[in-house]
Amino acid sequence: MTIRDWTVAGWLGTPRPDFAVGDLADRVVLAAAFQMLCPGCVETTIPQLRRAAATFPADQVAVVGLHTVFEHHEAMTPVALQAFLHEYRVTFPVAMDQPARRGQVPVTMERFAMQGTPTVMLYDRAGALRRRTFGHVPDLELGAQVAALVLEDGPTAAPPVAHDVRPSRAYACDETGCRV
Amino acid sequence: MTIRDWTVAGWLGTPRPDFAVGDLADRVVLAAAFQMLCPGCVETTIPQLRRAAATFPADQVAVVGLHTVFEHHEAMTPVALQAFLHEYRVTFPVAMDQPARRGQVPVTMERFAMQGTPTVMLYDRAGALRRRTFGHVPDLELGAQVAALVLEDGPTAAPPVAHDVRPSRAYACDETGCRV
Amino acid sequence: MTIRDWTVAGWLGTPRPDFAVGDLADRVVLAAAFQMLCPGCVETTIPQLRRAAATFPADQVAVVGLHTVFEHHEAMTPVALQAFLHEYRVTFPVAMDQPARRGQVPVTMERFAMQGTPTVMLYDRAGALRRRTFGHVPDLELGAQVAALVLEDGPTAAPPVAHDVRPSRAYACDETGCRV
Amino acid sequence: MTIRDWTVAGWLGTPRPDFAVGDLADRVVLAAAFQMLCPGCVETTIPQLRRAAATFPADQVAVVGLHTVFEHHEAMTPVALQAFLHEYRVTFPVAMDQPARRGQVPVTMERFAMQGTPTVMLYDRAGALRRRTFGHVPDLELGAQVAALVLEDGPTAAPPVAHDVRPSRAYACDETGCRV
Repeated sequence: MTIRDWTVAGWLGTPRPDFAVGDLADRVVLAAAFQMLCPGCVETTIPQLRRAAATFPADQVAVVGLHTVFEHHEAMTPVALQAFLHEYRVTFPVAMDQPARRGQVPVTMERFAMQGTPTVMLYDRAGALRRRTFGHVPDLELGAQVAALVLEDGPTAAPPVAHDVRPSRAYACDETGCRV
Repeated sequence: MTIRDWTVAGWLGTPRPDFAVGDLADRVVLAAAFQMLCPGCVETTIPQLRRAAATFPADQVAVVGLHTVFEHHEAMTPVALQAFLHEYRVTFPVAMDQPARRGQVPVTMERFAMQGTPTVMLYDRAGALRRRTFGHVPDLELGAQVAALVLEDGPTAAPPVAHDVRPSRAYACDETGCRV
Repeated sequence: MTIRDWTVAGWLGTPRPDFAVGDLADRVVLAAAFQMLCPGCVETTIPQLRRAAATFPADQVAVVGLHTVFEHHEAMTPVALQAFLHEYRVTFPVAMDQPARRGQVPVTMERFAMQGTPTVMLYDRAGALRRRTFGHVPDLELGAQVAALVLEDGPTAAPPVAHDVRPSRAYACDETGCRV
Repeated sequence: MTIRDWTVAGWLGTPRPDFAVGDLADRVVLAAAFQMLCPGCVETTIPQLRRAAATFPADQVAVVGLHTVFEHHEAMTPVALQAFLHEYRVTFPVAMDQPARRGQVPVTMERFAMQGTPTVMLYDRAGALRRRTFGHVPDLELGAQVAALVLEDGPTAAPPVAHDVRPSRAYACDETGCRV
């Protein structure tokens, strides 16, 4: 299974109107299937994708959402999703999974045999699905998984995170007490 | 600078009584300098080290604390640290930085020119200091940094995280609403 | 202004189909105007109303929501609200503010001159609006405000909270460390 | 039992050096027994007392801590407590429970038959203990309990919270999206 097996009805929040799955080529892709009325997705997955988009260089890691509506179809319409993305200030691209001709589960969700939302997926640079998790993946583990895929091309690959040995903003107390 | 430049007065919570810095050899080391009365360390760094110890395979990544007391020396004694580690259920090894002959700042903290606590440090398998951050490093970024060091030996290295494509425990709502 | 000045298009989650504002009579009413796509409402206000409904005796304090849609009307429809309340497991009654004949702001929201969502409102037993706050009211302050209204009838009123001197479930560490 | 039954070895963080239990007279007293190395106390109770001190008028409600060391006595010394209060920026008065002549449990803790830390206590204006809870009391419930005691003198008592119908700082999204 590759990311080219996605069948989507359209995209929101993309840099160009004609954005397509092919535009993700040559990058590691961190994707999450979600529903806008899934509380766990809203509370945990959307903020995690936002953090990921801010952490990893965009030319190495693409962060995208996949809206996979399999219940309450009359509530989670494209226009509702657009309002949701606006209010939650989502700035990464979101694809709308193609509704099924019959049945509740949309096409891509069915094809990838997802068990529900959220489902976190990692694709390598060739587009192959490498990890898929139903539920939440903690940040520490997800960060390691993303880096492992970014570095797969071996020692010539750039490091996945730009920062290096550096002083950083002090945490909480250290302005008064914990700074030497 | 390498981890062999640490000068410590002793260790707590080690697997063996004669544990020493040398026992960390051949592994990536994630270390954090902290003080038991530094609120940011207690709230953020200690839980992060605990998560890291639970996430990364122990034969590849060693997680250790370094208690660097540079203020309130009369409060943060070895016996107080021992009580603290017990109450906060810290199970990874913690080194006590060697107090200075004169001055407030202990030996290792001085030698590594740390600015305060917490200071997060990453050492590669050869023991070289590769990253040092004063303040908190978010989990997503730290996970990527750890993985990058684990994978430095090239394509023959094992992946930093054991899990793979798998179903996982469902998150919150999905028992009633978000499971297909 | 009293709670009888509410004009609503209908109710969801009520004990009876013919539930009306009059059914709140003789009780203190804690109400919050919200929108299902307002992130602050979802994250903070809905959980607070849920806690309030679980804390205060239902025969003394009524907890209700008021869905005041003033933007994204096409997304926050009655059917979408119903799905939202189901997914977020809201069990207190929610009124739908009457849409305006012209303009974006619904009737009750306009009449009470609310500035936005969330708006927390407290009504006394006679139905009079006693407090109105745009934004979040911290729990400690809200608990005091509710109790003050419950106790207004003087020393014969029952205490606002049922519990009394009692042992309670121990917190976190005390199973191992902090119990005598 | 009244607050005059407290036997303490001294006070820290008081407005005057000769502060004593008698200085709490004529006010409702919200007190919490805690230990500086009890994680639940540090994470939950200390912040709650800080919030209470900021919420209730000081001439009506006194907020105080009671350091009841019943374990790790060698770690939780007066000098260590002083450092702790400094680092955690505790500004309300804290009493040190009188150590027992024999046994681990200090005098006041023993006399009030407390089960462990934290123990939240409420005293009325006459000094009588009215509520005592081992473990955490949620803010909403605690706010109601404090207000009930403040208002016990009947309708002439001032309201427990100064604010009234008012606009307040908008929450999160409403600056861009949820303000009318």
